[in-house]
Amino acid sequence: MRTDKFLPDIATALREAGVRDGMTLSFHHHLRNGDAVVNMTLDALAALGVKDVTLALSSVFPVHAPLIGHMQSGLVRALDTNYVSGPVATAISQGLPAQPVMFRSHGGRPRAIGEGSLKIDIACVAAPCVDTMGNINGFQGPSACGSLGYILPDAEHAARVIAMTDCVSKTPLTAVSIPHNRVDSVVLVDSIGDPAGIVSGSINLTRDPVAHAIARNAQAVIRASGLLRDGFNYQTGAGGASLAASQYLRDDMRRMGLRGGFLLGGITRHMVDMLQEGLFDAIYDVQCFDLSSVHSIAENAAHHEISADSYANPGQKSCCVDFLDAVLLGASEVDLNFNVNVHTDSNGILIGGSGGHNDAAAGAKLTIIVAPLVRARLPIVVDRCTTITTPGNTVDVLVTERGIAVNPARGELRDRLKEARLPLYSIEELRAMALSITGTPLKPVLSDTLVGLVEYRDGSVIDSIYAPQG
Amino acid sequence: MRTDKFLPDIATALREAGVRDGMTLSFHHHLRNGDAVVNMTLDALAALGVKDVTLALSSVFPVHAPLIGHMQSGLVRALDTNYVSGPVATAISQGLPAQPVMFRSHGGRPRAIGEGSLKIDIACVAAPCVDTMGNINGFQGPSACGSLGYILPDAEHAARVIAMTDCVSKTPLTAVSIPHNRVDSVVLVDSIGDPAGIVSGSINLTRDPVAHAIARNAQAVIRASGLLRDGFNYQTGAGGASLAASQYLRDDMRRMGLRGGFLLGGITRHMVDMLQEGLFDAIYDVQCFDLSSVHSIAENAAHHEISADSYANPGQKSCCVDFLDAVLLGASEVDLNFNVNVHTDSNGILIGGSGGHNDAAAGAKLTIIVAPLVRARLPIVVDRCTTITTPGNTVDVLVTERGIAVNPARGELRDRLKEARLPLYSIEELRAMALSITGTPLKPVLSDTLVGLVEYRDGSVIDSIYAPQG
Repeated sequence: MRTDKFLPDIATALREAGVRDGMTLSFHHHLRNGDAVVNMTLDALAALGVKDVTLALSSVFPVHAPLIGHMQSGLVRALDTNYVSGPVATAISQGLPAQPVMFRSHGGRPRAIGEGSLKIDIACVAAPCVDTMGNINGFQGPSACGSLGYILPDAEHAARVIAMTDCVSKTPLTAVSIPHNRVDSVVLVDSIGDPAGIVSGSINLTRDPVAHAIARNAQAVIRASGLLRDGFNYQTGAGGASLAASQYLRDDMRRMGLRGGFLLGGITRHMVDMLQEGLFDAIYDVQCFDLSSVHSIAENAAHHEISADSYANPGQKSCCVDFLDAVLLGASEVDLNFNVNVHTDSNGILIGGSGGHNDAAAGAKLTIIVAPLVRARLPIVVDRCTTITTPGNTVDVLVTERGIAVNPARGELRDRLKEARLPLYSIEELRAMALSITGTPLKPVLSDTLVGLVEYRDGSVIDSIYAPQG
Repeated sequence: MRTDKFLPDIATALREAGVRDGMTLSFHHHLRNGDAVVNMTLDALAALGVKDVTLALSSVFPVHAPLIGHMQSGLVRALDTNYVSGPVATAISQGLPAQPVMFRSHGGRPRAIGEGSLKIDIACVAAPCVDTMGNINGFQGPSACGSLGYILPDAEHAARVIAMTDCVSKTPLTAVSIPHNRVDSVVLVDSIGDPAGIVSGSINLTRDPVAHAIARNAQAVIRASGLLRDGFNYQTGAGGASLAASQYLRDDMRRMGLRGGFLLGGITRHMVDMLQEGLFDAIYDVQCFDLSSVHSIAENAAHHEISADSYANPGQKSCCVDFLDAVLLGASEVDLNFNVNVHTDSNGILIGGSGGHNDAAAGAKLTIIVAPLVRARLPIVVDRCTTITTPGNTVDVLVTERGIAVNPARGELRDRLKEARLPLYSIEELRAMALSITGTPLKPVLSDTLVGLVEYRDGSVIDSIYAPQG
């Protein structure tokens, strides 16, 4: 057994891990648009002359644009991911890589890893702090990113685990995200990334009146649902309406004198504030969305790192999403069956992916889709989603600034909202309302080039994504 | 997926876990001689009429005496353990259970579990605190025992995991030893045990002059070895000489102004004191030996719970014992090849087992066996050990109150100790010295009834244990 795990460079670590053509290498996205590890590892693979690898990267950001060249060169043959944005998303819509992309959810990915359908040969960890034994945490060092939740299943199941770090602790770590006994080798690099890039998208509170109208309606739904009581467990995204809704939730909880259970998912300073204020007992953190939450997870014992297994893997004994009372989720399209699309836009171009969308929707007692009735002069409600990310039978209600539609299967919820005199419409009425503003939009014209498969969290393929025409 | 995991009683939980004849059920020993969970689960199994089960219990204590009846009745057909003491040990020496006992080490057990050679159907967790989701820790509640390190591999690999607890937290736990996603069901019982029973054996400092003479010699060996410097990693047992040696180590470290790395293994208040004093950076705790360490692991972030995988599993990428500079270990016999016996006494009767003995010996740079030259009028040094627990090629030096013997294979160490003018003898000389006091003892007379197999940490069977004659 080798106890000195430190190797001089990434290429050496890859060689010692037995890298060869056709292998699957996995990465995580906690450094988000600040990540440097994917690009430097791809460069090392290119220098080694490796080809036809599958890249299992939990999410792809604009910073990963060099991946396009590596897909063109044949180094990367397949991509397995939960979310794509930026130039790589566009490149996928244009037919890269060679094989259709496998889109999973944040819970489906660890399910696939655990059951062995996604077999990882080498897991590459962007490790903010590593001690001399190889223990890793995400809390310390110049590139601290907080939770390392999405790579924990990889570290458990991959044949080989390589940590890249820019901070070596001379003292044994006692905050440990990945224990040394899972780590084969460690490479010290100049920088694993730019933690300023962790903050991507808007996490500041919006002043947009439409977002606030949606947020007020969403919180009115939660209030009326009867679920808002002591022990309330909550997840929300980092979109404008979702963040604004947290403020209204906070006001209600203060007023009602409630204390919630846990806040879940990608964590922002708004959640940290609620924890510190004592409105919730705990944060279960699979990913930090900003530096306030990175600081909090390092300092506050009630802010607890969880793995993707714990968060959302339907193959485990339970997962945190099962215990959610309410979740707020976004949409690029919602159709008349309440199916939701967060993969593609109305032109069929890739703009995202499930992330935890279909996991949280499946688990929560109350799944609220928040979206403007009209976005970029296009209606949010469509006859049929271009791509189905989240099946309508896991969605309870669509909340827009103009009105609220309850899934017809949720009679009791509809009655409660009606009693609270919320502006209820059928989804067909919301559709008509949107069309009266936008007119009938053109349908996206798709080619017969298959660019992606959408795997639902349980492992079934629920949709296929074709490249837009021309 | 069931989110309400709470079941009314143990029998129901066992039935829901699909218990049937011939299954393997696993347990852990963190409540040591205070444990109530093994006995109550055996009673439930008996009431269900189950038979021929294998009990994989990390260590057996006097409190587990009712196990004898369950072996006689045929409920328990086989025992898989790392250590036995009390009436069950005696019963094994008399030919119970039906099958020879499989003796493993604390690192060999999780190796066997991880590789699948010890397949666990149902893991039973004595869980000091459980929240409504099923998250478990050992730090809170009336029966807090601290680290749950030895059951963590079971919780990861067992087909089913049942937690028995006497403390349900209404708020989500944020100190988590076993996450909810590994737990199938939870049973609330009156009491999982008596934490006062955690403290077994002597953990108070001895005044025995022989123990102090051994301890002084042992610390002189460490000092002379050249290994005592900043970052020194250390493990010791809870025997009299070992604990006394810690005091001499502490004096040396203070005088030399050193700061060690980690303290490892079963943890006592003497180690907690050294951590608090700043003599070490960290405690890596697989088991708490007293209530001071239980309190410390709950309160001090530098006192870190580790799994048996991390502690000593040779099948992992590394284990903590690999990073030990020095370890002090006891012996009932040491033979002329430096093999050590901690399984049986000189009559061949079972009195213990490896625990982490052969793991730490294999890993540490300096493995010191501490023992009195003569014990109960019998020499410690024998021609050939009655039972081999730890192979002599992993042992560096035997330290007694009368003199020190270095393994001939360790020439450099011998030179260092010679230079420090320590009282060096060959092991044959120590043997002769002991015999001059005791006279030649009678050899134990063994029957041909095989009662146990000794599996070395790597999976090879290195010895067999036969029942004493008559």
